[in-house]
Amino acid sequence: MLLGRVVGTLVATRKEPSLGGLKFLVLKQLDIEGQETGGYRVAADAVGAGLGEVVLYATGSAARQTKLTDRRPCDAVIMAIVDTVEVDGVVKYEKAEAD
Amino acid sequence: MLLGRVVGTLVATRKEPSLGGLKFLVLKQLDIEGQETGGYRVAADAVGAGLGEVVLYATGSAARQTKLTDRRPCDAVIMAIVDTVEVDGVVKYEKAEAD
Amino acid sequence: MLLGRVVGTLVATRKEPSLGGLKFLVLKQLDIEGQETGGYRVAADAVGAGLGEVVLYATGSAARQTKLTDRRPCDAVIMAIVDTVEVDGVVKYEKAEAD
Amino acid sequence: MLLGRVVGTLVATRKEPSLGGLKFLVLKQLDIEGQETGGYRVAADAVGAGLGEVVLYATGSAARQTKLTDRRPCDAVIMAIVDTVEVDGVVKYEKAEAD
Amino acid sequence: MLLGRVVGTLVATRKEPSLGGLKFLVLKQLDIEGQETGGYRVAADAVGAGLGEVVLYATGSAARQTKLTDRRPCDAVIMAIVDTVEVDGVVKYEKAEAD
Repeated sequence: MLLGRVVGTLVATRKEPSLGGLKFLVLKQLDIEGQETGGYRVAADAVGAGLGEVVLYATGSAARQTKLTDRRPCDAVIMAIVDTVEVDGVVKYEKAEAD
Repeated sequence: MLLGRVVGTLVATRKEPSLGGLKFLVLKQLDIEGQETGGYRVAADAVGAGLGEVVLYATGSAARQTKLTDRRPCDAVIMAIVDTVEVDGVVKYEKAEAD
Repeated sequence: MLLGRVVGTLVATRKEPSLGGLKFLVLKQLDIEGQETGGYRVAADAVGAGLGEVVLYATGSAARQTKLTDRRPCDAVIMAIVDTVEVDGVVKYEKAEAD
Repeated sequence: MLLGRVVGTLVATRKEPSLGGLKFLVLKQLDIEGQETGGYRVAADAVGAGLGEVVLYATGSAARQTKLTDRRPCDAVIMAIVDTVEVDGVVKYEKAEAD
Repeated sequence: MLLGRVVGTLVATRKEPSLGGLKFLVLKQLDIEGQETGGYRVAADAVGAGLGEVVLYATGSAARQTKLTDRRPCDAVIMAIVDTVEVDGVVKYEKAEAD
């Protein structure tokens, strides 16, 4: 899994029928320091993530291992909202309490 | 999923028999700002996408999760035509009404 | 799927038993303009491709969705021989009639 | 599989329900000389790896082939703790006895 | 599939139980000219490859399509030992007879 920050939304009315009801969020990929890498991903949201939140997302067939995405043509899913990331003994990211 | 713009078509008469009837479109990959990255992908079309449209495509085993591509040797599928992409509160792409 | 040109062959007598009978071809990857990218792939041939031909190949689990490759440890398959590729209204590649 | 060093932990209370009980570790990717590549991965831990240990991790659908990760939206798993890596006749890494 | 040269071994006593008996080899990735690319992969050995041999390896779910690796958390497998690679009419690699 990789880290991403939810930065936007994508609307698509004409789509594969099985995708109805899925919410697509735009993620900017983050490196281990929490900095943007320049990459992005559009992912289905399985956890109710909000704009600005740092999330963990899975790609490939793993993205279909949720009730929302099972058997759907979806190759990326947000499967967790990150509370804290600690690397080499230093807290690199901590979710704000007010979120 | 990633964003792409439909830029062309590919014709192949000699192909794996199960692929009969599938339409292959050529996509230029787009970054989050809607700019071309230099990459491309040939994808099966599951939604009736047209030349010039911005689409969302899935790769890997997800590409077989449509009726058209089920059990076929296909690793990329267009599964949605994009209406709008909004990033950091700014509309980065909006489909023209006349499309 | 990506485009490749068949440039060679690979012979391996000692291999996983289930691979007996599969023909492995060496592909140089092509970009959307038909230029070589510097990358390559060794792929199983499901369509009888010949040296010099431009082909479409699928990777990952899609490579096992042919009778020849089903349940075999194969991650790339040539699934179509390309006749024409048209991009932005320009024919980028056209198979020679004599082929 | 690739080599990584366990450098940290990730806590996520809001996540896909099936992920309850899984421990997520942060890995820095290592090259064949044991040097960091700049890349990272968040992986589920199937072997009880500790901070600082060099591990082997698998990605993609392979990451679900453990009891802990079966049918879960997880695309990377630590499946072995490395004792020694020998390349070109030279021991590139050896786990300290006291570990 | 890609080409690699077997350059070393990896020992791991603490690992996912299903991996018992699998031999892990360290591969340096080769380009189409037989030169090292700087990349590597740790792969399960399904064919009894030896140090110095040039092999073909498959990644992703294809790596589990052998008796040795079936249902194991393994994402790369050596599935053939290469005898010859011929590109553009030139033999780029030929296994020594004494091997």
